Amino acid sequence: MRFNTLICALALGSGALCAADQEVSVLVAFHSQTGNTETMANALAEGARSKGAEAVVKRIGDVTQADLEAADGVALGSPVHMGDVAVAIREALVDWAYGFGFWRSKGLANKACAVFATGGAPSNGKEFTMLSMALGMLQYGMVLVSPHGGLGASATTGIPEHEKGVGEHEIEEARELGARLAEVARRLKE
Amino acid sequence: MRFNTLICALALGSGALCAADQEVSVLVAFHSQTGNTETMANALAEGARSKGAEAVVKRIGDVTQADLEAADGVALGSPVHMGDVAVAIREALVDWAYGFGFWRSKGLANKACAVFATGGAPSNGKEFTMLSMALGMLQYGMVLVSPHGGLGASATTGIPEHEKGVGEHEIEEARELGARLAEVARRLKE
Amino acid sequence: MRFNTLICALALGSGALCAADQEVSVLVAFHSQTGNTETMANALAEGARSKGAEAVVKRIGDVTQADLEAADGVALGSPVHMGDVAVAIREALVDWAYGFGFWRSKGLANKACAVFATGGAPSNGKEFTMLSMALGMLQYGMVLVSPHGGLGASATTGIPEHEKGVGEHEIEEARELGARLAEVARRLKE
Amino acid sequence: MRFNTLICALALGSGALCAADQEVSVLVAFHSQTGNTETMANALAEGARSKGAEAVVKRIGDVTQADLEAADGVALGSPVHMGDVAVAIREALVDWAYGFGFWRSKGLANKACAVFATGGAPSNGKEFTMLSMALGMLQYGMVLVSPHGGLGASATTGIPEHEKGVGEHEIEEARELGARLAEVARRLKE
Repeated sequence: MRFNTLICALALGSGALCAADQEVSVLVAFHSQTGNTETMANALAEGARSKGAEAVVKRIGDVTQADLEAADGVALGSPVHMGDVAVAIREALVDWAYGFGFWRSKGLANKACAVFATGGAPSNGKEFTMLSMALGMLQYGMVLVSPHGGLGASATTGIPEHEKGVGEHEIEEARELGARLAEVARRLKE
Repeated sequence: MRFNTLICALALGSGALCAADQEVSVLVAFHSQTGNTETMANALAEGARSKGAEAVVKRIGDVTQADLEAADGVALGSPVHMGDVAVAIREALVDWAYGFGFWRSKGLANKACAVFATGGAPSNGKEFTMLSMALGMLQYGMVLVSPHGGLGASATTGIPEHEKGVGEHEIEEARELGARLAEVARRLKE
Repeated sequence: MRFNTLICALALGSGALCAADQEVSVLVAFHSQTGNTETMANALAEGARSKGAEAVVKRIGDVTQADLEAADGVALGSPVHMGDVAVAIREALVDWAYGFGFWRSKGLANKACAVFATGGAPSNGKEFTMLSMALGMLQYGMVLVSPHGGLGASATTGIPEHEKGVGEHEIEEARELGARLAEVARRLKE
Repeated sequence: MRFNTLICALALGSGALCAADQEVSVLVAFHSQTGNTETMANALAEGARSKGAEAVVKRIGDVTQADLEAADGVALGSPVHMGDVAVAIREALVDWAYGFGFWRSKGLANKACAVFATGGAPSNGKEFTMLSMALGMLQYGMVLVSPHGGLGASATTGIPEHEKGVGEHEIEEARELGARLAEVARRLKE
């Protein structure tokens, strides 16, 4: 990055826009029934915005082909349903291939991606849910960004002896992942 | 990339080195007993070199802290042993954390990574072996690059009615992944 | 089993039905578009019948609560869609919980289960597809039966330099898994 | 089971030992550094004993071929190390194949198996660690028993705002899995 900054400085002398100033756009798509995954989605978007990215938060069913084309980074989030990803998310990952044509067009290749999940129990399905979403996006040649020490951001929402819903610590983890996604998306775009 | 080229052109006018010309270094680390995984490792390195990267191929036990620090992209490869990753690879992924200190230093963060595997049967363990390596590197904040339509490059080496060892089609897949790893590593480095 | 046979012999002397003669019922449920997964489903059913079990083969959408209640063993099969399980299968595994009430009733507990998958490429998604189905059924307390040396039965249907569709070797693997599922289901039922 | 009991009653009239009275033996093998996984191992053994099984608890390195041959059910437990299973466990699962000869002998086939894991964070690696152990044992034709609503028993040992170490709720989950393993092992043995 330091080297890039040097180029920017030189380039700016010539009146050119610096690469680091390029607009980066992040799409946060999610499925949510109780609001927990939506809370996490908003935290990811906040994190992305904190790095200067534009962030759009959408329910998975509302995501259009144009949304995906416009995004430099895509985060996907799902609650755990019977130990694995929600049907609506699995459906979307298949639709993107044929309905939106991204299998043939390779139009998602080299975009950054990240995953997040919520679930009632500490160790029952959040990892597999995140895996399913990660594998789906990797199929399109997207590049996977994770938090330090994990596969994605997650919240345990029904743990005994613990606060219900999404905790502040978990929101912070989601924000950090959003920030990281925006940064990697910017580098990949350059 | 086109934009970057413009910057490069402007910058070059000022005598600066263009970002796209930065040297990119790829480390291909593997475990191999029969030579199949080594064959794949060499193919990945060839692919990386085809994109102008410097590529080092090393047995996992010979990889040093300095090798990892110097690498912009790291590919890890393993044969399938009883349905999952080889012990030597699992061992290395833990050692990197504490022996090499990369857990605390976060010194591998934002480097590109990719995985490859070989196994006798078509669908018995190559995916889980690649998953194990991918999860291990994602723990360090590395950024995962996959082939279009897959998690990593793989070879089925004992399929009935099929040629033994690594086939030309599989070598080509490994080369492509190596090329892709080098390209993403370059973008991430800038 | 030998011990059981002894009991049976003794019991038969008293006119009681021998445990080993109990009727075992296997349900093979699948999603299929091109017919490959259906071919595998039929092979599993043949294998189960070869062990004296009654086997019912049904498209996933036609499976009723009564079908599941009547089954001692359940095999689930799916093609790979974008690297993971078909939507229809994921949907069913969630529906069984709430639509059929098996989450609360625990009505599937201790039934035997097994998985199978088909996919074009050797190592792109068949393992993860089988994993998704296995995890889903394990949630219900079902007991997972795999082939020796694998997670489930699978067929690679689009491999280059290889015959298209489901090969005889793969059909045999499916038959063996069906036989094994029937045997374990019988033991679990006793 | 009721049917079996009937047979037993009839058989007992003839002086034969009832199948349900057969001795069932469970081996709980684990790797542990801080004692958390060992605590879980002991809880599993208690659960198995509560169902009348004999339970042996051993560090993974101390498990012999005879231990495995004698066991009707095997539980494997591991802490999470860098997002996945401990090296010592992966090593054992490979050694059992060749060192103990269970790949060729198929001597572990149809034994019941179960998995458990401990890890600091709620959703970082316990699922993948349990998966790795489950896949390893499934390779041998072992039959996988999980808790209702999960892949194995697990404890989150470093969660913020929560008690450190293994909680009572988690110990109870381990006990229940041990009991369930013993029951399924008994059925499979008959």
